[in-house]
Amino acid sequence: MPDRTDPEGAIAEAAEKYSNWGRWGSGDVLGTVNFIDADTRRAAAALVRTGESFSLAQSFDMNGPQKGWRRRTNPVHTMLDTGVDAALGNQGFPHGIGGADDVVSMPLQCSTQWDGLGHIFDHGRAWNGRDAAKVVTSEGDLVTGIEHMAAPVTGRGVLLDVGRVVGEDGELPDGFAITAEHLKATAEAHGVRVGRGDIVCVRTGRLARARREGWGDYAGGPAPGLSFTTAGWLHGTEIAAIATDTWGFEVRPNEFDDAFQPLHQVAIPHIGLLIGEMWDLDALAERCAADGVHAFFLTAAPIPFTGAVGSPVNPIAVK
Amino acid sequence: MPDRTDPEGAIAEAAEKYSNWGRWGSGDVLGTVNFIDADTRRAAAALVRTGESFSLAQSFDMNGPQKGWRRRTNPVHTMLDTGVDAALGNQGFPHGIGGADDVVSMPLQCSTQWDGLGHIFDHGRAWNGRDAAKVVTSEGDLVTGIEHMAAPVTGRGVLLDVGRVVGEDGELPDGFAITAEHLKATAEAHGVRVGRGDIVCVRTGRLARARREGWGDYAGGPAPGLSFTTAGWLHGTEIAAIATDTWGFEVRPNEFDDAFQPLHQVAIPHIGLLIGEMWDLDALAERCAADGVHAFFLTAAPIPFTGAVGSPVNPIAVK
Amino acid sequence: MPDRTDPEGAIAEAAEKYSNWGRWGSGDVLGTVNFIDADTRRAAAALVRTGESFSLAQSFDMNGPQKGWRRRTNPVHTMLDTGVDAALGNQGFPHGIGGADDVVSMPLQCSTQWDGLGHIFDHGRAWNGRDAAKVVTSEGDLVTGIEHMAAPVTGRGVLLDVGRVVGEDGELPDGFAITAEHLKATAEAHGVRVGRGDIVCVRTGRLARARREGWGDYAGGPAPGLSFTTAGWLHGTEIAAIATDTWGFEVRPNEFDDAFQPLHQVAIPHIGLLIGEMWDLDALAERCAADGVHAFFLTAAPIPFTGAVGSPVNPIAVK
Amino acid sequence: MPDRTDPEGAIAEAAEKYSNWGRWGSGDVLGTVNFIDADTRRAAAALVRTGESFSLAQSFDMNGPQKGWRRRTNPVHTMLDTGVDAALGNQGFPHGIGGADDVVSMPLQCSTQWDGLGHIFDHGRAWNGRDAAKVVTSEGDLVTGIEHMAAPVTGRGVLLDVGRVVGEDGELPDGFAITAEHLKATAEAHGVRVGRGDIVCVRTGRLARARREGWGDYAGGPAPGLSFTTAGWLHGTEIAAIATDTWGFEVRPNEFDDAFQPLHQVAIPHIGLLIGEMWDLDALAERCAADGVHAFFLTAAPIPFTGAVGSPVNPIAVK
Repeated sequence: MPDRTDPEGAIAEAAEKYSNWGRWGSGDVLGTVNFIDADTRRAAAALVRTGESFSLAQSFDMNGPQKGWRRRTNPVHTMLDTGVDAALGNQGFPHGIGGADDVVSMPLQCSTQWDGLGHIFDHGRAWNGRDAAKVVTSEGDLVTGIEHMAAPVTGRGVLLDVGRVVGEDGELPDGFAITAEHLKATAEAHGVRVGRGDIVCVRTGRLARARREGWGDYAGGPAPGLSFTTAGWLHGTEIAAIATDTWGFEVRPNEFDDAFQPLHQVAIPHIGLLIGEMWDLDALAERCAADGVHAFFLTAAPIPFTGAVGSPVNPIAVK
Repeated sequence: MPDRTDPEGAIAEAAEKYSNWGRWGSGDVLGTVNFIDADTRRAAAALVRTGESFSLAQSFDMNGPQKGWRRRTNPVHTMLDTGVDAALGNQGFPHGIGGADDVVSMPLQCSTQWDGLGHIFDHGRAWNGRDAAKVVTSEGDLVTGIEHMAAPVTGRGVLLDVGRVVGEDGELPDGFAITAEHLKATAEAHGVRVGRGDIVCVRTGRLARARREGWGDYAGGPAPGLSFTTAGWLHGTEIAAIATDTWGFEVRPNEFDDAFQPLHQVAIPHIGLLIGEMWDLDALAERCAADGVHAFFLTAAPIPFTGAVGSPVNPIAVK
Repeated sequence: MPDRTDPEGAIAEAAEKYSNWGRWGSGDVLGTVNFIDADTRRAAAALVRTGESFSLAQSFDMNGPQKGWRRRTNPVHTMLDTGVDAALGNQGFPHGIGGADDVVSMPLQCSTQWDGLGHIFDHGRAWNGRDAAKVVTSEGDLVTGIEHMAAPVTGRGVLLDVGRVVGEDGELPDGFAITAEHLKATAEAHGVRVGRGDIVCVRTGRLARARREGWGDYAGGPAPGLSFTTAGWLHGTEIAAIATDTWGFEVRPNEFDDAFQPLHQVAIPHIGLLIGEMWDLDALAERCAADGVHAFFLTAAPIPFTGAVGSPVNPIAVK
Repeated sequence: MPDRTDPEGAIAEAAEKYSNWGRWGSGDVLGTVNFIDADTRRAAAALVRTGESFSLAQSFDMNGPQKGWRRRTNPVHTMLDTGVDAALGNQGFPHGIGGADDVVSMPLQCSTQWDGLGHIFDHGRAWNGRDAAKVVTSEGDLVTGIEHMAAPVTGRGVLLDVGRVVGEDGELPDGFAITAEHLKATAEAHGVRVGRGDIVCVRTGRLARARREGWGDYAGGPAPGLSFTTAGWLHGTEIAAIATDTWGFEVRPNEFDDAFQPLHQVAIPHIGLLIGEMWDLDALAERCAADGVHAFFLTAAPIPFTGAVGSPVNPIAVK
């Protein structure tokens, strides 16, 4: 384990060891998503056995976990027109047609989401070594906006149900740091291999607990999650993306005395890793436990908001 | 062709002939999406040959076509935090970490989207015969909200490039009504069969024209699109969903003297058909024309806003 | 006191006794604001002695009391452009000019506000006996929208500091029902008369407590406020408007066993009374206590959102 | 007139001549609003003769002039609850009470507004010489946010109806540069004096034209407005604020070959002048022309969004 008192040193060391800067050229905007190619995708499609589909999205509504931290609210969905008005003839349309329409205001990272490559910086550096001040301005991410991820994020998904394999009653406690050893043991228990181009889904059980006990501090509070020490595993496995059922992907409280999301600081700007948060893996996990198959075809295409540094996604797993 | 002066009569007749009310029970919330099942989905996965993926979404930003009709704007994306601020040390985080975050305000039908089953009513009746006033209130669609479509909309996609087969230079002119004959001829030209559970993508070329000439009245103005007379084809083929590269799916101006989206009035509340609009089919169409294969695996999972009557989607086709 | 078990009966009785329906004609859209006229306004201007001005608005930001009840959030304010970007030359303007710009998403009743006449209904009836279903649709208040209040709400303000006169340490406890007797006694203690056309500001001390102890359940929880029994006083005094430093104007919990804002149900649709909530009266109250003068010139002009049923306001008192 | 080819030189010269930096101390956040004091406000109240009130706000709705420039839209107002739902009993409240509630998403400068002191910078410098990058970040204006203007902006208003005095049929043509001489001649024609602490309202007639002919390019297009050469008058008169009935306060096209709002660049960061835009002065102007009295009591209190660089306002003139 790194020195608890020196997050900055530990981050610098990991950043240097696991950097992918330049690996896909100076103009790269995809990071580890480059590991997904047509071949891996074709192979992933061949995994489909039953044709069952699973949405890995939480719901998007006011009953979500957000409480206002950094101006993040739950999505506010309102109607422009309703069936009530249509039924009463308030709409002024001809021949009995009526309609309903709606709008939403929301943070792009309020519910199930991908962190874009412009979401996190290390000492003013964004993915691939770029100057953060030139990448993400008030106009959005001018270089690595989430729109670049519109097409490629579909391929082989692997569920690592660490909550079930390592935890009690399917859940890891808050503050539990998932290490590379836990990840490997879980894969082994599942009989699945994790490798290049995979989209790895790590289930901790934290969301199941929130469902049972209420959101509480789900958004920003203590949670199980990836240990800072997994940076090497994240880099070495050459996975394309990773997602968890927690708010913040990595373990909280963090493993340093005074720190904030230190693994993000290595994973996003240095590894170029696509990170998913607040995914709902519970139904899929039930099914995988039942049939013993933990790899599947996964499509996790973000809504391509131009210049966004994160985006809502409804990931679909097909078994 | 129906009597141009009597849209209401024509709608009533088509509604009666092609109604699916009760077909999947009184509690149904999926409509024709019921035609997709695990078998059709498994068969669709077997279509994957090359592993190439295509996003069928337009971009989501202020450069879109909306001009304010019924309070529909383009999406307004703003930053909560930026790389500029991170680089200047304005954020107050420890150990050199910086972040960017963003929000959006938008109509749910401003860009590439699915119309939910609660989007259109016929004389106060919603899908399956329900009272529209009990289905879609100010709180949203309480019965058939788009969240029910979160998981199932993945299966066999079929591109019908009517613009290329029937049009000139790949485009149909505004006001061109696509009939069942055009659809069948296009399928035949492609060597593809359309059937139960398919998600049909109809390319008219209207978006390509907007790209070349500017949006103009893309949102709400004249466009090629499905003829009112296709209602029987939409019903009889037992397709699960259909999407176009136009704002409004059906031909505009409509084929009646004084009408507004009459085919919607049959297709959504009576057939229970999932309709997609403003899809970008151009890149996929190029590829299909090149390889001659017009069926593919398609995942088109809406963001599951609870109670929404429409939702943004980033459809992903894998060939 | 009315029968605790029969709110509906009590409301019906008060509604009949204190109704102003028809008083200003069938087309009226102003209610008791009609009591303000040029004469009362001129007389009010003559009250100005020192020229000091006081804002009676709370701040509008994410540090507000809203917690999501009925989709009410605090205002989300984001920047379209910043000084940081301007300083770095990211904006592309000529000759060294730079700019900042911003947007907000918010409920119109999230902070200091007026309730419009379309905010509350009694058994489907809106102000002046209109059918609520014809007045406030998805398009907003088509008849009594807050835009009608744009000009007239300026005149004589009167502070009734009930917290200071009746309470302990300047504050009334939660659940304290302010009666007409309390209001009269407070006016008498202040040496001020309340009458036709006045805009009455009732200070309970609830906001001061929230400032000291945190918001807690300020929005929607227990609070001091006007007793249901004040309906007669509200009607008989012919005041134009009344505002409090609480979330909900009337005492909470309400004075019936199972009730929700029963005084609103009389005051808005029947009396046609303009009600202000979440005002900040503390600084003004300090000054009035010091100089013994509790009447002043008050301008409380809502932002005229067309069709709004409530609106933010920054009320300005000039002594 | 300054050299058309050298806006930067002209701005620098005017900035030096008319700077108020340091005039009210290094911590100042009010700029020329400091010129309003209790005495000027008391004197202004004494101007009230008839008690008539006028709202100088345009309406706030989708029928406004914004077309998306720099992501500025018109305000999108939607309902959270409606009278229609209340009438149908959809709301679940007891004893027959029903309610309507609403939300808005809007740029703070979409309609009648004040520009805050953090709205415009000159070569990275904000009002009072501060570093723009330290003043307005993604979190808003940390120093000179509009909340500081919550209380003081009430005092003596003066209408200068230049459209009526200098124009034809009450309107100045687009591109007409109003000089100090025009302002003085207008004041003389009105028999009114402009001086320290005044809030000056300049009517050009541009809004009347937009009302008659449609918005066209009202937002950002050609318009009459203040000449760059009025900088000295703006500074020397010691007025507290100035507002126009145009989108951009100063004449457009600007008086330099390649320029963007050059008078703003002097007036806001150097003079510290509060500038109002998109005011509706027409009804007031009619009345002033009729009674010959052009000074009045004016309350123009912005909604105090914390950290905002501009804010909607409903200015109220009382004659």
